[in-house]
Amino acid sequence: MTKLSLLLASAAALLAAPLSAQTSSLNAADGDRLASMADKALESDSIAWDFVEGLTTEVGPRQSGTEAEQRARDWAKKWLTAQGFAHVTEEPFMMDTWVRGEEKAQVLSPFPQPLTLVALGNSAATPAEGIKAQVVGFDSYAALADAPEGSLKGKIAFINHHMKRTQDGSGYGFAGPVRWTGPSLAASKGAIAVVIRSVGTDSHRTPHTGGTTFAEGVKPIPAAALSNPDADNLVRMLERSDDVKLHLLLTPRNLGQTRSGNVTGEIVGRDPSLPPVLLACHLDSWDLGTGAIDDGAGCAIAAAAASHVAEAGQPLRTIRVLFAGAEETGVWGGKAYAKAHADEPFAVGLESDFGADRIWQLRTNFSDSNAELHKKLVRAVERFSVEGSNREAGSGEDLTVINQQKTGHVDLAQDGTHYFDLHHTPDDTLDKIDPAQLRQNVAVWTQVVGILSNEAGPIKTQ
Amino acid sequence: MTKLSLLLASAAALLAAPLSAQTSSLNAADGDRLASMADKALESDSIAWDFVEGLTTEVGPRQSGTEAEQRARDWAKKWLTAQGFAHVTEEPFMMDTWVRGEEKAQVLSPFPQPLTLVALGNSAATPAEGIKAQVVGFDSYAALADAPEGSLKGKIAFINHHMKRTQDGSGYGFAGPVRWTGPSLAASKGAIAVVIRSVGTDSHRTPHTGGTTFAEGVKPIPAAALSNPDADNLVRMLERSDDVKLHLLLTPRNLGQTRSGNVTGEIVGRDPSLPPVLLACHLDSWDLGTGAIDDGAGCAIAAAAASHVAEAGQPLRTIRVLFAGAEETGVWGGKAYAKAHADEPFAVGLESDFGADRIWQLRTNFSDSNAELHKKLVRAVERFSVEGSNREAGSGEDLTVINQQKTGHVDLAQDGTHYFDLHHTPDDTLDKIDPAQLRQNVAVWTQVVGILSNEAGPIKTQ
Repeated sequence: MTKLSLLLASAAALLAAPLSAQTSSLNAADGDRLASMADKALESDSIAWDFVEGLTTEVGPRQSGTEAEQRARDWAKKWLTAQGFAHVTEEPFMMDTWVRGEEKAQVLSPFPQPLTLVALGNSAATPAEGIKAQVVGFDSYAALADAPEGSLKGKIAFINHHMKRTQDGSGYGFAGPVRWTGPSLAASKGAIAVVIRSVGTDSHRTPHTGGTTFAEGVKPIPAAALSNPDADNLVRMLERSDDVKLHLLLTPRNLGQTRSGNVTGEIVGRDPSLPPVLLACHLDSWDLGTGAIDDGAGCAIAAAAASHVAEAGQPLRTIRVLFAGAEETGVWGGKAYAKAHADEPFAVGLESDFGADRIWQLRTNFSDSNAELHKKLVRAVERFSVEGSNREAGSGEDLTVINQQKTGHVDLAQDGTHYFDLHHTPDDTLDKIDPAQLRQNVAVWTQVVGILSNEAGPIKTQ
Repeated sequence: MTKLSLLLASAAALLAAPLSAQTSSLNAADGDRLASMADKALESDSIAWDFVEGLTTEVGPRQSGTEAEQRARDWAKKWLTAQGFAHVTEEPFMMDTWVRGEEKAQVLSPFPQPLTLVALGNSAATPAEGIKAQVVGFDSYAALADAPEGSLKGKIAFINHHMKRTQDGSGYGFAGPVRWTGPSLAASKGAIAVVIRSVGTDSHRTPHTGGTTFAEGVKPIPAAALSNPDADNLVRMLERSDDVKLHLLLTPRNLGQTRSGNVTGEIVGRDPSLPPVLLACHLDSWDLGTGAIDDGAGCAIAAAAASHVAEAGQPLRTIRVLFAGAEETGVWGGKAYAKAHADEPFAVGLESDFGADRIWQLRTNFSDSNAELHKKLVRAVERFSVEGSNREAGSGEDLTVINQQKTGHVDLAQDGTHYFDLHHTPDDTLDKIDPAQLRQNVAVWTQVVGILSNEAGPIKTQ
């Protein structure tokens, strides 16, 4: 018997409540016990840290569709089982897999020196001897968009779009398109390769990778991201010369269809017939770092919160954690889950996929339709310095099933000020997590998931 | 005619002093003019920034003994000439040159994942297929020293010695031996390769390179430094398993004897028969970064200070800048210079080779023998928040000639708190320099070099 199972059994015994009480929302005593558990998590949670420490050490990088991602699923199933989760399941799906190869860049003239870069997901390969061509620089996505058709024929396009540091991550929304569709846009204008300034806010020689998508009818070209200091250097060269030549070598490969999968586990509720609460994160990571903040921490937070809620007393509704596979390369897991579970009703979904820094805001998609519950949640997390917002919740790549069902959705918004220093870089490693901030996440999640999973009535009325 | 030559000519005209006055120390008016020039440098110096911006952009990495270092010498000679320095000279010498090749590490078992590392200078190569062996970990240099003879036979030694962050750089003195002689020590105990924790204070996936030396009679083995996050990860693996196996591939090469050289230039003094003031730095860098702080900034500071002193009025003594070659791989330039100039008397030497952060302390080696001058220097830099110290000056790898002659020596100690985040890493790039702190360096150097180069009497009496 696991530690959690023991706790569940004793909690159930302690409750000693009549059956009728067990199908209603939290009573005062249960509410107090849940609040104490959240407070205790803030003080001393070790479950989340142990999860992310274990995953990053024992598995490390776990790119979607690779053998390493399978090892991560095996690791996660073992962990969930040991932690007392029920119905630990792997749901496989097939996906297209791209993997990195060699990646080198060298300024040939007028100022010979190497540049540090990484290929973007879905980048084409260069010929084996690389590409040698002149660089044409653009300050922004808009400037590239303005370039005449055909004007980049035979050239390497360089997009030097700067990303701004913001708490809510909105800087990514503005700079992201440079990576998402910039290469395709450059290719459509004749470019034979593209290098972008990293979509990130740090100043280290650790470039940011991430997926790029080529529009239909546009032949993929080699596409890579320079580290920010390298982008600065290339800008200085272009300020001095209109004939900067680059040698670019990228040898990524498409592996075709490979297997990935979603992993789930449950804290079974007192009334399993009620629609469950879904806690999502993704288990895959990019290959450059060990995926501590993206998204080891997210799965750690969700799983630790579910554990603490169970420890406070068996919840009314089942809590299911969804460790989605293959998020980074196209939300394959989230989409597969939505397809497989389209007909299963869910009460509410929450996702953690924005690092390990503290939660600063709570949003729901029922502040009007279920104002009482919304206010209850806001009041319950005030003591953790979290503010309520009437902005509608709806983020979460891996909550496709929730978004399709238009059911309940809660966002626990994390502070993203430093997130894009690390996201998709080699620097996404365990040492970047502040244990105190991670515990604050777990505390807030415990409080919120505890209330939601003990809510007897519908959470969001359509 | 260059801008500086024009300024020198007009300054000489402005002085309009009798010849006798020109051979004595600074008078009050000249002293005021020098102080104003230093103040102006603090406010608005652009010479140092332009130097390091130009060198890192137009040359970039410039490892000793390579073609890139020759390009740096050509660049520096052109720059010194344009800046109005006289007697711009290259003094070539030959040296042994080692260059980096491929470098990869992979944990084979029990937790397969790649590790980020860089070869140390003078590392041997692994066989083409790499080395596969068990890792034996040591917490410190002392622990490795205690390992029984032969106990590392067939193993990869891992030295996880932590470096402490200090203002004065003393942490390097304690941790440095791990890199300087740790690999030799491990080899002498039978190790077939060695990986060390980077001798540095950062937390990025940017490992620190640097030279290592194998003792006579010890056959060199492959030797590399893990980034600090990777060292932490390996420690966690070793805590879980006593059978961690690593695959290590390093393909560095020894090129044999290649050419390097020192570059010098002068601000000619009013009395060229007096021993000159020598300002040293090194022009070479490690290959991973662009050598902005190590030591582009040092040469920038020395050359900018000499320029400002000249602008304030032709100094009494000649000021010579020495951009030494091949410091990083064994002070080849400093030693060659000392040999070639053994019989030339120097008045005093100063070196800048500790980054670009502010100067916080002034030391001399004449606080007893020439207390008046020592105090004059201390008083003159107080306004830049620099304290005087009676600790004896004597640092400066490239001041070998000064140390051998036991002549005057002044240390302008820089704040090294952040230096070892960057030193010898890919992150040693221009963006790491704070222009305000760089200007403070130039101001203090201008003030001190101005006083020293206008000192008529001996600076240090033996």
